[in-house]
Amino acid sequence: MKEYLIAKSKLVDQALDRTLPKKGDLAKAMRYSIFAGGKRFRPILCLAAAAALGGNEKKVLPYACAVEMIHTFTLIHDDLPAMDNSDFRRGKPSNHKVYGEALAILAGDALSTLAFKGIADQPAALLELSSALLEVVAGQVADVQAPSKPLTVKAIRSIHKWKTAALLRACVRGTALICEAEPGAIKALTKYAEHLGLAFQIADDILDVTATQKQLGKPVQADVKKGYPYLFGLDRSKELAAREKQLAIKALDGFGPKVKKLVDLAGYVVERTF
Amino acid sequence: MKEYLIAKSKLVDQALDRTLPKKGDLAKAMRYSIFAGGKRFRPILCLAAAAALGGNEKKVLPYACAVEMIHTFTLIHDDLPAMDNSDFRRGKPSNHKVYGEALAILAGDALSTLAFKGIADQPAALLELSSALLEVVAGQVADVQAPSKPLTVKAIRSIHKWKTAALLRACVRGTALICEAEPGAIKALTKYAEHLGLAFQIADDILDVTATQKQLGKPVQADVKKGYPYLFGLDRSKELAAREKQLAIKALDGFGPKVKKLVDLAGYVVERTF
Repeated sequence: MKEYLIAKSKLVDQALDRTLPKKGDLAKAMRYSIFAGGKRFRPILCLAAAAALGGNEKKVLPYACAVEMIHTFTLIHDDLPAMDNSDFRRGKPSNHKVYGEALAILAGDALSTLAFKGIADQPAALLELSSALLEVVAGQVADVQAPSKPLTVKAIRSIHKWKTAALLRACVRGTALICEAEPGAIKALTKYAEHLGLAFQIADDILDVTATQKQLGKPVQADVKKGYPYLFGLDRSKELAAREKQLAIKALDGFGPKVKKLVDLAGYVVERTF
Repeated sequence: MKEYLIAKSKLVDQALDRTLPKKGDLAKAMRYSIFAGGKRFRPILCLAAAAALGGNEKKVLPYACAVEMIHTFTLIHDDLPAMDNSDFRRGKPSNHKVYGEALAILAGDALSTLAFKGIADQPAALLELSSALLEVVAGQVADVQAPSKPLTVKAIRSIHKWKTAALLRACVRGTALICEAEPGAIKALTKYAEHLGLAFQIADDILDVTATQKQLGKPVQADVKKGYPYLFGLDRSKELAAREKQLAIKALDGFGPKVKKLVDLAGYVVERTF
């Protein structure tokens, strides 16, 4: 699995390097966050979904890059002083700490634009990704407004769903549409992604409590009161993450052996918390 | 002409009202800037270009709305404290003065996303609009960085080209692609839009010097040192705007009478400065 992750993240890095502009301060700011050591989980999820469908990896690669650009764009804007005011991301100073707020805002705007430009020739996938991004933005609004409101389990689940699960769902659904998958396969992959998204976010909440800043690359315990461990305790949260992983894998029943990488990815998401 | 502008801006307003979300704080922030009294110049330019090409207005309307959403998104982000720090826009407090910086940033992000989502089924037009937006963002970077650099005529012209002309060009070119126009017509309309963009920006620079804040709806003399009057004087600037208008109209030779609204729009752009 580790070799697969390394090989595919290299493939994605090379494609991103070809896609991003090279000259000027804006390009520098865009490249800083894109090449800040992200694990490329979302683009690799696209490529693994393509493999499960017997699809063409090269055809899916621009979409995989678009998802990563969209993800990075939301992180840059989320870290801004007016939002989460986070000084570190992936173990490095956040974009606005290096390039200033103006350039950070514009680098995010440019990454979002470049993402959609890169998949203009895949209208159905573009529709998936733009719909997901609207959910991510709505999730960030709920997150920003959360401290002043009472936080219920329902509210936390909504924020999770919007902020994380929406984009993971778009990874597999957009890929499936590019690969012209059958409706049944799209439905199964959607279910997989929804459980994967929950497992992913619960795991993130657990890491926020258990990991050190060095391990995580960003300030820890930043979102404690918005997390699963705060609501359910650490052990129960780990159980819940494991259950979501199982449900994700179960959704893939009937796909056959080509689905292996998707199964491994679900395992990877949860195991990094232990 | 006035009746035409009123009728078409009403049409665009109705389409935008149908397109934008209705509930929640994010929707409110998006709607605040979209319905803040913009003249709808860009979407009307799309509709006038469609008329010149004998195209279907209804088919172009989503693109016209997308352009207005993109334009509004760039204005919201440009006004932010980290950028131009402008408290007023179109005679009203800017978005972040009403909704706070976080929601203003996210409202801009959502408008941009909704714009591309709305034209996913027009790949060629989406490519035009996203390319133009990348130029607009690059222009804003140059603008933000301008105060610390010596400002040459060339630099001012580049900023103008990026910040204004790129989007106006995308209006007519995207429309032409949706209307499946012939290459010759696209070329002529592109030339028209490039001169129109210059005329528009010179006129804006003139208004920045001559208009009152009440007339303009935003602080005046905010960009004096970046403007044509500062470089060439007021009279010469007016001559230059009039010349660009003439060149824009000349580019339309051979289109026949259907081109009238485009001619009128070019006149409108320059005459508002006198």
